[in-house]
Amino acid sequence: MDQIDMNCDYGEGFGVYRSGESPDLLNYVTSVNIACGFHAGDPRVMRQAVTLAKEKGVAIGAHPGLPDLAGFGRREMKISAQEVQELMIYQIGALDGFCRSEGISMQHVKPHGALYNMAARNAQLAEAIARAIYLVNDQLILFGLAGSELIHAGQQIGLRTASEAFADRTYQMDGSLTPRNQKDALIHEVEIAANQVLKIAKEGRVLSLQGTEVVLDAQTICIHGDGPHALEFAAAIQQKLKLAGISLAPVGQMIS
Amino acid sequence: MDQIDMNCDYGEGFGVYRSGESPDLLNYVTSVNIACGFHAGDPRVMRQAVTLAKEKGVAIGAHPGLPDLAGFGRREMKISAQEVQELMIYQIGALDGFCRSEGISMQHVKPHGALYNMAARNAQLAEAIARAIYLVNDQLILFGLAGSELIHAGQQIGLRTASEAFADRTYQMDGSLTPRNQKDALIHEVEIAANQVLKIAKEGRVLSLQGTEVVLDAQTICIHGDGPHALEFAAAIQQKLKLAGISLAPVGQMIS
Amino acid sequence: MDQIDMNCDYGEGFGVYRSGESPDLLNYVTSVNIACGFHAGDPRVMRQAVTLAKEKGVAIGAHPGLPDLAGFGRREMKISAQEVQELMIYQIGALDGFCRSEGISMQHVKPHGALYNMAARNAQLAEAIARAIYLVNDQLILFGLAGSELIHAGQQIGLRTASEAFADRTYQMDGSLTPRNQKDALIHEVEIAANQVLKIAKEGRVLSLQGTEVVLDAQTICIHGDGPHALEFAAAIQQKLKLAGISLAPVGQMIS
Amino acid sequence: MDQIDMNCDYGEGFGVYRSGESPDLLNYVTSVNIACGFHAGDPRVMRQAVTLAKEKGVAIGAHPGLPDLAGFGRREMKISAQEVQELMIYQIGALDGFCRSEGISMQHVKPHGALYNMAARNAQLAEAIARAIYLVNDQLILFGLAGSELIHAGQQIGLRTASEAFADRTYQMDGSLTPRNQKDALIHEVEIAANQVLKIAKEGRVLSLQGTEVVLDAQTICIHGDGPHALEFAAAIQQKLKLAGISLAPVGQMIS
Repeated sequence: MDQIDMNCDYGEGFGVYRSGESPDLLNYVTSVNIACGFHAGDPRVMRQAVTLAKEKGVAIGAHPGLPDLAGFGRREMKISAQEVQELMIYQIGALDGFCRSEGISMQHVKPHGALYNMAARNAQLAEAIARAIYLVNDQLILFGLAGSELIHAGQQIGLRTASEAFADRTYQMDGSLTPRNQKDALIHEVEIAANQVLKIAKEGRVLSLQGTEVVLDAQTICIHGDGPHALEFAAAIQQKLKLAGISLAPVGQMIS
Repeated sequence: MDQIDMNCDYGEGFGVYRSGESPDLLNYVTSVNIACGFHAGDPRVMRQAVTLAKEKGVAIGAHPGLPDLAGFGRREMKISAQEVQELMIYQIGALDGFCRSEGISMQHVKPHGALYNMAARNAQLAEAIARAIYLVNDQLILFGLAGSELIHAGQQIGLRTASEAFADRTYQMDGSLTPRNQKDALIHEVEIAANQVLKIAKEGRVLSLQGTEVVLDAQTICIHGDGPHALEFAAAIQQKLKLAGISLAPVGQMIS
Repeated sequence: MDQIDMNCDYGEGFGVYRSGESPDLLNYVTSVNIACGFHAGDPRVMRQAVTLAKEKGVAIGAHPGLPDLAGFGRREMKISAQEVQELMIYQIGALDGFCRSEGISMQHVKPHGALYNMAARNAQLAEAIARAIYLVNDQLILFGLAGSELIHAGQQIGLRTASEAFADRTYQMDGSLTPRNQKDALIHEVEIAANQVLKIAKEGRVLSLQGTEVVLDAQTICIHGDGPHALEFAAAIQQKLKLAGISLAPVGQMIS
Repeated sequence: MDQIDMNCDYGEGFGVYRSGESPDLLNYVTSVNIACGFHAGDPRVMRQAVTLAKEKGVAIGAHPGLPDLAGFGRREMKISAQEVQELMIYQIGALDGFCRSEGISMQHVKPHGALYNMAARNAQLAEAIARAIYLVNDQLILFGLAGSELIHAGQQIGLRTASEAFADRTYQMDGSLTPRNQKDALIHEVEIAANQVLKIAKEGRVLSLQGTEVVLDAQTICIHGDGPHALEFAAAIQQKLKLAGISLAPVGQMIS
C-alpha cells in the first residue's frame, strides 16, 4: 500500500456558535466529514464547509448524527432501525443539496458520535445505515470503525467501504479501541501517533497496549480536529508518511 | 388550454403529531408539496409522504419553510437573502434524499407560508429562492403566486415556473388576492370555487370581487388540504373540469 | 381510605398541533400533569392548560420530559444524573411561571415517558429528580410508580410522594406492571378497570394477572387522556368509586 | 447620584458551544442578564451562570429572547403580543427555577436582542412584556432602553424600572442611539466610553455625536461581554467611576 486517506470532522458550529476546529486542517486531510444539522451544523455552516472543502480539494462526506443538538449527538438514544434509516436519508440529502449547488459530488458517509458507536456493535442499526446510503446513492463510500458491524453491513449490501483507524487512540490486543474511560486510551505524543499511522498504512498492523501486533485493515485515518494540537498532529503524520513513501489521497481515488 | 395542475400541501405532521390532512386528497391532486422539516415534517413524515405520492402517481415537490416549527412557518422573520438561499438548498436536498431513495424525481419547489408571501413581494428574497433551486437542480419547476416577484425571479434565472391560483380565495380587480383579514376573502361554496377554477383553466381569467374580469395566467391550482371540506372541494373541481373537457395533470407534463 | 386522587396528562400539543386529549377530561380528574416544552407543550399550550385547570379546580403538576420533541420523550437517552437534575429544574420553573401568573400554586411533579420509566428503576436518576424538585420547592409532591426507585428517592430526600397505579394496565404477581409488549397488558373493558381502581382505593390491593391478590399502595390513579374512550373510562371510575363511598380529591388535600 | 448599576449578558452558550464571554466579567458588573434557553442557554448553562453569579455576589436577571436559537434571537419576527407574553412567562419561570434551587432571588428582567428592540418602539409588545413580568412577580425590575416604550409600559403597569444606557454606543441629539449601520455608532476607545458612563452617572447627561448635551436618565449601564476588550472596558469604567466617588451597585439596592 502506498496511499491512505486521512479524514476529520468539520462544520460543527451552529448559528452564532463556532466549534474549535481550524480551517487550516483542510490543508492536511484528504476527506472531510460535514455535520448535517442534527447534532451540529446548520445551512450556513454546511454551505461554508462545502465551499471550503471544494476550494481545498478535499473529498466531502456527510456526517449524520442523532437528533440531539443539546447533546452534540453523543448521547445514545433508543431509536428504531427504521428511524435511523430515515434520519440518515434526510441528512445525506441535505448535505448533497449543497454539494450539487457547488457542482461537486459527495464521496462518503460517516455516522457521528453515538450513532457511529451504536452502529459499530448493533447489526440492525448498521444495516439501516447501510441501506439508507445505498438507497440514496449506491456510489457513496461508507466509513466505519475497522472490524465493526457497520463495515460488515456496508459490504453485505454492496457499498464500497472504508475501514477507519485512529491516530490518537490506543488499541487492545483483540483490535478494539481502548475505551475512553481507561487510562492510556488516548495518545498525546505526536511522534507515537504518527508512528501508529505509519504502521497501519505500511503494514496493516497496530501495536496493542499489551505489546502484541494486531492486524488492522484500514483505508482511512481519523484525525480529531478540535484539539489544541490538531494541526501539529496532522502535519506530523503527513510528514512521517511522506518520508516513508506513502501519500495521502481521498479514499474514493483509492478503492474501486 | 385543456389541462391544468392541482396541488396541495402534504406531510405537515411532526413526531407524534398529525395535521388535519387526508391521504385521500392525493386521489385528486396531481402535484403535492411536501414539508421539509423546518416549519413541519420530519424524516418519518417525509418518507411516508413521498411513498404515498409515488403510490398515487402524484408529482412531488419540496415545500420549504422558515425555521419556525412553533409558528408553523407562518411568522415573518427578518432574514437575509443569503440565509434564505441556504435554507432552501438544505430543505430541497433533504426531500430529494427521500425521492432518490424511492427512485423517483422531484418535480417542483413551492415555498411555504411566510416565505411564500415574503418572496411574492420582495425581489431580493425571490431571487435567492430561485437561485437556490437553480443551483441544486435547474430542471425543478418553481411554484409561486401568479404575478409575483417569485415567478418573475424564476423566469429571470432560467427556471420553468408554474403560476399558482387559488380555488377558495377571491381576487381583487388588480389581480391580487383579497387579504385574509377582509370579509369575502374566502370562498366557502364548492360550486363557486369550482366555477372559478374552470374559468381560470379555460379562459385564463377570474371574476374579481368588484365584478370585473381579470386576466390570471395560472398553470396550477392550490387546494387547501386541511379543511373539513377539502375532499369535497377537490372532487367537485375535478368533476367540473372534466365535464368541460379539461383534465388534471402534473405541471411537469404540461410545460416544457 | 375514603379518598383517592385521579390524574391525567394534559397540554401535550405543540405549535399548531393538538394531541388527542379532551378538555372535558378535566371534569373528572383531580390532578393534571402539564407538559413543559421539552417532549410536548409550548408557552401557549402551557398557559391554556393552566388556565383550564384553574377554571375546573383541578390541581396542577409539572410533567417534565426528555429534550426530544420528535420522539415525544418516549425514547430513552443516556443522560447523566446532573443533566436530569438541570432539565427538571428548568421545566418545573417554566410551568411555575404560568401558575404564579395565574395566582395559583403547583401541587406536584410527575416525570414523563422515558424519564418516568428510567427513574423507576435507576436510583441515581431517581435521586436527581427528587433533588431537583426539593431544591425548587420542597412542598411539591412527587408522583411516581408505586414501589419504584423514584418514590423511594422522594421519601429519602424528604418530599411528600404519591404512589401511582394505573386504571387500564394489568399487574403481575410481584406488583409490577405487565410489560406493554405482552398480551393482556392493557385493560380495555371499562367495568374491569373501574373495579381495579375501586379495589386499589378500598383495599390497597390489586388482582394480578396470575389471579393472586397483591398489595398496592397508591394515592393516585393515572388515566390515559388520549384514547377514544378516555371520558367514558373516567366517568365510570368516578361513578363506581362514588357508589362505594369513595370520593376523588387532589392528592395535596389528602396527604400531609 | 453616587451609585449606578453595570450589567452584562451572560450564559449565552448552548450544549457543547461556548460564547466568547469571560467569567471574569462578573468581577466588575453588578447585575447579570442570563439567557433562558430560547435564543441561547440551556439548563446546564443556566445553572452554571446562576451559580457563578451567586458566588460573585452579582444580582441576577432573566434575559428572555425570541424562539430562534439559529439566529441568536437577533432576527425580528412577526409575533403577537399574546405570544410574547407567554414566552416571557415561560423563560422567566425557567430561570427562576435555578434561582430558587440556589436559594436566591431574581432581581430583574431584560429582554434580549430583537425582542428588546421591538419592545423599545412597539407599545403593544412592550405592554405584553411588562404584564408578563408583573404577573409572575411584581417585585422584579424591568430593564429597558432609556426613553423607550418598554420603560413606559413598565411604569404604567406598576413595575420598578431601570433605564439602560450603553458604554460603547454613541447617542444622537434626540437621545436615541446612533444606528449600528452608521459610522461612529460604536465607541472603541476605553477612555471615551468611561467618560460617557461617568457623565451619565454624575450628570444624567450624554454628549451627542452632534456635540450637544442630551438628558439621559439611566440607572444601569450595559457592557458587552463578548468583545476582546470587554474586561478592559469594565475595569476602566469601574476605576473612572470610583475616582469620581461613584460606586457600582445592583439596581435593586438603589431604587425603591
